[in-house]
Amino acid sequence: MEQVQFMRNLIIETPSEPGNFAKVALAIGQLEGDIGDIQTIKVGTLSTIRDISVQCASEVHLQRIVDAVNAIGEGISVHAVTDEVLQAHEGGKIHMKGRMEIRSLGDLRRVYTPGVANVCEVIKNDPEQADYFTGISNTVAIVTDGTAILGLGNIGPVAGMPVMEGKAVLFDQFAGISGIPILLDTSNPDQVVETVKHIHKGFGGILLEDIGSPHCFEIEERLKAELDMPVMHDDQHGTAVVTLASVLSACNQEGVKLSDSVVGQIGLGAAGLAISRMLMAYGVKEMRGIDQNEVACERLAKHGGTVIDTLDELMATCDIIVATTGVAGLIKPEMVKKGQIILALSNPNAEITPEDALAAGAAFAADGRQVNNVLGFPGIFRGALNAKAKKITYPMLIAAALAIVESTKPGDLVPHPLDPTVHLNVASAVERAANHIE
Amino acid sequence: MEQVQFMRNLIIETPSEPGNFAKVALAIGQLEGDIGDIQTIKVGTLSTIRDISVQCASEVHLQRIVDAVNAIGEGISVHAVTDEVLQAHEGGKIHMKGRMEIRSLGDLRRVYTPGVANVCEVIKNDPEQADYFTGISNTVAIVTDGTAILGLGNIGPVAGMPVMEGKAVLFDQFAGISGIPILLDTSNPDQVVETVKHIHKGFGGILLEDIGSPHCFEIEERLKAELDMPVMHDDQHGTAVVTLASVLSACNQEGVKLSDSVVGQIGLGAAGLAISRMLMAYGVKEMRGIDQNEVACERLAKHGGTVIDTLDELMATCDIIVATTGVAGLIKPEMVKKGQIILALSNPNAEITPEDALAAGAAFAADGRQVNNVLGFPGIFRGALNAKAKKITYPMLIAAALAIVESTKPGDLVPHPLDPTVHLNVASAVERAANHIE
Repeated sequence: MEQVQFMRNLIIETPSEPGNFAKVALAIGQLEGDIGDIQTIKVGTLSTIRDISVQCASEVHLQRIVDAVNAIGEGISVHAVTDEVLQAHEGGKIHMKGRMEIRSLGDLRRVYTPGVANVCEVIKNDPEQADYFTGISNTVAIVTDGTAILGLGNIGPVAGMPVMEGKAVLFDQFAGISGIPILLDTSNPDQVVETVKHIHKGFGGILLEDIGSPHCFEIEERLKAELDMPVMHDDQHGTAVVTLASVLSACNQEGVKLSDSVVGQIGLGAAGLAISRMLMAYGVKEMRGIDQNEVACERLAKHGGTVIDTLDELMATCDIIVATTGVAGLIKPEMVKKGQIILALSNPNAEITPEDALAAGAAFAADGRQVNNVLGFPGIFRGALNAKAKKITYPMLIAAALAIVESTKPGDLVPHPLDPTVHLNVASAVERAANHIE
Repeated sequence: MEQVQFMRNLIIETPSEPGNFAKVALAIGQLEGDIGDIQTIKVGTLSTIRDISVQCASEVHLQRIVDAVNAIGEGISVHAVTDEVLQAHEGGKIHMKGRMEIRSLGDLRRVYTPGVANVCEVIKNDPEQADYFTGISNTVAIVTDGTAILGLGNIGPVAGMPVMEGKAVLFDQFAGISGIPILLDTSNPDQVVETVKHIHKGFGGILLEDIGSPHCFEIEERLKAELDMPVMHDDQHGTAVVTLASVLSACNQEGVKLSDSVVGQIGLGAAGLAISRMLMAYGVKEMRGIDQNEVACERLAKHGGTVIDTLDELMATCDIIVATTGVAGLIKPEMVKKGQIILALSNPNAEITPEDALAAGAAFAADGRQVNNVLGFPGIFRGALNAKAKKITYPMLIAAALAIVESTKPGDLVPHPLDPTVHLNVASAVERAANHIE
């Protein structure tokens, strides 16, 4: 299978004459290389060197692009191909840092023995003091068994570690949370639940990550029931929060009222089911869904949704469509109902492209490129930890979605993920929601 | 029981005249308050304010000291009592930090989706690449069940967290290792071993910490046997390494050859047994030991030591004595053999004070204040990780002890723990030892 997630950087020298860079961009673009960040490394009197990030489909595709740039001639040449993605991961992306430096024996005696014994006794005598004198209440375990890493499937927890480290980086930067990857060598629900329970005292919350369906459902439900702390499977509920926010933004732009709408969910895996449950928790006129897997359909029905037999019927009867099947091109233009809102979220290739959907009569169409979980989980956990919430509830998740909508600039579907206000707004909304209901 | 580990800071104002500080120091000293770091906060024309760290035995003791300083008169007064130890622990002592900042969408695409998928695939296809593109090989789990926290006993893992965080701070600062506290809510060896095995793939090594005797023996042995990574119980072998180094330093100062000596170990708990085993691994003429607990004595015999029936006999027949009983004053001056080397290591009160031991004829005597594990574990794990060692062996531990001895300044028992060269030397010696034997 071709990997669209293939990024390389080309170090390209051109004579310093106007128009030369455009020739390079054209050569790359004609071969469908996707140009990302460009850094100018050197601007000389005679020549200019740029570092151009290019997303392509494969090694072969990359080589064709390099050959094409070199074939332009006129002194234009590719000096090197670098892999900035791999470079950014060298040595891993996270490190457990001391919050203070030990500069003297006095410091050592304060943060280690003998001083530390005093702090231990304070906590022994009043366990709640651990919230203030340890980092536990600001620490979230990022737990995976590696069975559903991104779109790559069951590649194991070690190969999934770069994703877990990425989550920890985002926790740190966007929410000030200390995120600890926990890689499980088992996906047996009994063993996963037992293991997490045995280590849970070191954490203020549990983020379940990239755990496959259907065992993710049992694991999450049991941990939520048995632990008095925020537990959330991001691939289910984090995705559902950002999807609900996207649906609400689309409705706002089209003047549609979500609560009066019939919504159709195509694909009832972990994400699809969670999106359906979230939409029902928010309140829609009717939630309809379809999936090839009968057990998945039964789950939707159990939660109050309507199972539809054919894709044609679903497309013909719903005002809003959300698709999470992973099947590119599943939605044919002739299925689109006039005025429909369509979010075809599968990555890297959508069930229908926004262009095709709009051409077929959709009022609004988007794909999954912007619907990024990073908009949700950091603020959700920040708010839950701030509130000392014992559970993450639907009112808290809906509050998070509404905060994302409120942080969205007019005309956009979702906020820019690096806009720090969105994470603050989500945290604040979740904290308020947690305090109202507890 | 009085806690000697009770540190407070007194903010004291004195008129700016020579001799006033001496009056303060005298008042504190006469009441046996132990003065630590002193910071001058303000030097005015008329008055000077100092922040004086004082170690005392209890709240009552502290209040007597404050009253005594205020009673000096002449404008000398205690403005405030602060608890710098607790302050240093506010919010916890560690945080999981991203090693880079995400400043652009390009950064986000590199360290998170879609770029990260490429790194996952690299590792999936060649699992060893996880050593380079994740932090796993530089991360050590600091695992405790909270059953033997410092001298405080079984206070549970959460109350023990300040110690685990302290270890993580030391790992970070002295060895560049990312240390992750893992708090276990069980001390059942089967459950501890199962839990650690289920999470071990996220770590390059396991530091067992403050796990009580006797279950610490079974847990360590089983984890060592079943995991292909460095596993070490610091309270056993970390302590034994620093003790061996101290014994060797004392021997060097007295011109005694350890390998020709009969050594007596008083107290065969986790530390005492490990010290005995370490000394036998180094090579001594005979290792003798004593403990009230018969099972502990059997363990020593199983490992090749000689069990002695009475303390008098042990003291009368050994050239070198190491005591780790926790019983203050256990060794009477009349038991001391002329020319003996005595390390009475129990904290905070030794089995015999160095003054009494020397007065009774010992050639060398020290207590446990300097024999700090921080000299061992950071460098031991740094070296083991650098060597990609699958086990921590006696040759590696003995190499660590010799490196500590070589880093000790003439006349000292051990190096200053903040001297960075000792940690580098230990790491380098352990790495070399690991490569020789594997």
